[in-house]
Amino acid sequence: MDSSGIHHVGIAVPDLDRAVETYTRIFGATLEHRETVPDQGVEAASVLVGGSRIELLAPTGEDTPVGRFLARRGPGVHHLAYEVVDIEPVLDSLAADGVELIDTVPRVGLFGLQVAFIHPDAVDGVLTEVVSVARAS
Amino acid sequence: MDSSGIHHVGIAVPDLDRAVETYTRIFGATLEHRETVPDQGVEAASVLVGGSRIELLAPTGEDTPVGRFLARRGPGVHHLAYEVVDIEPVLDSLAADGVELIDTVPRVGLFGLQVAFIHPDAVDGVLTEVVSVARAS
Repeated sequence: MDSSGIHHVGIAVPDLDRAVETYTRIFGATLEHRETVPDQGVEAASVLVGGSRIELLAPTGEDTPVGRFLARRGPGVHHLAYEVVDIEPVLDSLAADGVELIDTVPRVGLFGLQVAFIHPDAVDGVLTEVVSVARAS
Repeated sequence: MDSSGIHHVGIAVPDLDRAVETYTRIFGATLEHRETVPDQGVEAASVLVGGSRIELLAPTGEDTPVGRFLARRGPGVHHLAYEVVDIEPVLDSLAADGVELIDTVPRVGLFGLQVAFIHPDAVDGVLTEVVSVARAS
């Protein structure tokens, strides 16, 4: 696929306020967006460190994807997201190449992005997201 | 600290050739550098995906830092590295602020970079590297 590079690194944290404070204090991060998405069980903050974006993800409860990740692995990197211009043909091409996808069609992710996940088994254990900043038409 | 952003994402993999092939095939990555550093127990490849850099890390044996990481957690993101211009004053400033450092002075890392690690406990579980591309004087 043709990607301009990493769109963001998603990091699972137990306490969003504390994580935003940590990234601001240590890395001089600035807050870009913040939102809570109850049906995804996540409270998220997008912060910028220089030209890079970190997506801090805290669970809204234990029985949520990020809550289960924290219980199983502890805080740490949750996923890597690569930016593409046009997500649908990218997913079609990956599927045609036999790459195992979690989402075969894009869905609306955090902050209104179009997103789809590649299964970590296809990418050496890294949960990998494909992101298009173009809004769904 | 004042960082231009993420220098690279370090990913622990069991098989370096296979990982380079995977990143080339799925993400169109191009190989930037490759080297084996026996005294760090690692065989590494730096690949570029668009404007972003992924450092793929395979262990040279089980009793190495990356070998132990793989045994404990499986393949996945090993560390995040942020780029700074001048690493020594950054480390001094972090130490003065009470940030727990693994390396209080820079050392030569992979590909001749000057590097130092921040303890993951200081950064919500993420092993974090500070990198300066300036060569040691």
